Amino acid sequence: MRIAVDAMGGDFAPKEIVRGALEAAKKYDCEILLVGDEEKIRTELHGENIDALHISIVHAAEVIGMNEHPAEAVRAKKDASVVVATRLVKDGTCDAVFSAGSTGAAVAAAQLILRRIKGVGRPAIATPMPTPDGVTLMLDSGANVDSKPEHIVQSAVMGSFYAQYVFGVRRPRIGLLNIGEEATKGNEQAKETYELLAAERNIHFCGNAEGRDVPKGSFDVVVCDGFVGNVVLKFAEGLAKTILGLIKEEVRSGGLMAKLGALLLVPTLRRLGKRLDVREYGGAPLLGVDGCCVIGHGSSDAKSVASAIGATVDYVNGKVLDQIREALAKEERSNA
Amino acid sequence: MRIAVDAMGGDFAPKEIVRGALEAAKKYDCEILLVGDEEKIRTELHGENIDALHISIVHAAEVIGMNEHPAEAVRAKKDASVVVATRLVKDGTCDAVFSAGSTGAAVAAAQLILRRIKGVGRPAIATPMPTPDGVTLMLDSGANVDSKPEHIVQSAVMGSFYAQYVFGVRRPRIGLLNIGEEATKGNEQAKETYELLAAERNIHFCGNAEGRDVPKGSFDVVVCDGFVGNVVLKFAEGLAKTILGLIKEEVRSGGLMAKLGALLLVPTLRRLGKRLDVREYGGAPLLGVDGCCVIGHGSSDAKSVASAIGATVDYVNGKVLDQIREALAKEERSNA
Repeated sequence: MRIAVDAMGGDFAPKEIVRGALEAAKKYDCEILLVGDEEKIRTELHGENIDALHISIVHAAEVIGMNEHPAEAVRAKKDASVVVATRLVKDGTCDAVFSAGSTGAAVAAAQLILRRIKGVGRPAIATPMPTPDGVTLMLDSGANVDSKPEHIVQSAVMGSFYAQYVFGVRRPRIGLLNIGEEATKGNEQAKETYELLAAERNIHFCGNAEGRDVPKGSFDVVVCDGFVGNVVLKFAEGLAKTILGLIKEEVRSGGLMAKLGALLLVPTLRRLGKRLDVREYGGAPLLGVDGCCVIGHGSSDAKSVASAIGATVDYVNGKVLDQIREALAKEERSNA
Repeated sequence: MRIAVDAMGGDFAPKEIVRGALEAAKKYDCEILLVGDEEKIRTELHGENIDALHISIVHAAEVIGMNEHPAEAVRAKKDASVVVATRLVKDGTCDAVFSAGSTGAAVAAAQLILRRIKGVGRPAIATPMPTPDGVTLMLDSGANVDSKPEHIVQSAVMGSFYAQYVFGVRRPRIGLLNIGEEATKGNEQAKETYELLAAERNIHFCGNAEGRDVPKGSFDVVVCDGFVGNVVLKFAEGLAKTILGLIKEEVRSGGLMAKLGALLLVPTLRRLGKRLDVREYGGAPLLGVDGCCVIGHGSSDAKSVASAIGATVDYVNGKVLDQIREALAKEERSNA
């Protein structure tokens, strides 16, 4: 299996991306093509023993920045790292692409180059959110806004296959993010979506999920509009960071006893951090495009990159795309 | 000042409501009318020394349950505690009403009995969300869904006055909850709302707020559609609960050192809990109705009730309603 890695995307690129790719190449059965500025990548690889690893470099002269207009930049910069990496999947050289750069650019490159799977109206980003017993997959967490009810239903079908074939959940429980448990609750979009989800045979729809059900893990997959999902995702990141900051501040101002207590709790807190750390759960697949594309967090360090590449390997091995293609083709036939 | 308290509303009513009301009557300069089943309230008051306190009972024979249809229940049960309590504000007996029962019922009662302030399209629930340095007021957190851009702008004006006259923020920073910082980001609703907020003279609009800005406290007031606000509010509650549960679980399974560490950290964690505890920040005012109405969390205990009644006292003292009435009347004149 070959994975194209956008070496220039992310707040700590190329250093952390290259380090993470090395870690992944050691850990998983895959070949990695680092895409980006050859000289900079070589500098990062300098001194590393990569003889036994399947790592190569594909030069790409340009980079798409965080503040560029995604679709325009993808069209204008034919030689941008994320564009070149995505093309490697399109032409069959690679099985998947991973980028921790501008999410918008990765989505635009995937949409323009890989195109959507036949029958899919809108692709969706599926983000694994940590819960006490594993993860809840939340989608769409920001590929699109103003989703139509049928797009949210397709997200549910795609997310269900991902949870089944990548996470190994036998019969994923699907929930619709809403403001109450009853079928009649919510805005117009949610009410219409509820009806469609209840009638969809490819999934095990379990009803409405309230905001609290996401961290609780009451569902395996929670679907929502991309606007709502993105707000929730960033809120979660912000809240976790705020709480950690407050703990540090309180310990610092808490005197000797608090410091000693914190010291004794280090292994516990570390284990807790591991369970809550999004980095442990790897990247977020962009479901609905015709090729494996996985998106990493902008602040990814080597550890997150390695874990995301691991998720990418599982994604390819799970043959999720085949499942989605087949299910949606069947749906098209039965609608015709 | 007289406050009508719905003694029957909430998961732990009437016990915790009555206890909280007693605490508030001791602490704040107000008279409290406990509305609900007289016999049950008397039982709770039994043994308490209330001679020095201004507390009385107004009998109401019915209760609106959590699963009843709000507007229908308010219309059908003329003698429900929340209906009677709200009427006490309408007829001038009380200055404000507080309920920790069904949020939908409290909103419906306020809308049907107190009516909206002239010029207000939709009322909004303004929830104080804890941040490291105080609170961010988030509205609408669930009074309505499918809000129009002009409703969100009115929320901003009302929230701004509340932050100014109740929290004492001189020039509240207003943010629009969105998925990116740039003015062009977001769904159709957010883009239209941005334009209107930028043109609104009654507020200090500071641009888009992302999900992470709410717990961070980058803004004093964050406005959004009621669907999004409600999902975020419940997500926050769920995440906080999940994290606390995980800490307990890890400490329990962490051996003697972890237990000793946790013990030494108790005062620190308690201080932290106090800073993050929504109960410290009292109830959420329903802004836009023509009378002071404050909503408490369903799981309110005596402490939360007392603190919410304190917020209600501040709300009345701040004369926020006068400010809102005046600003919106001016707006209507200038639009005419």
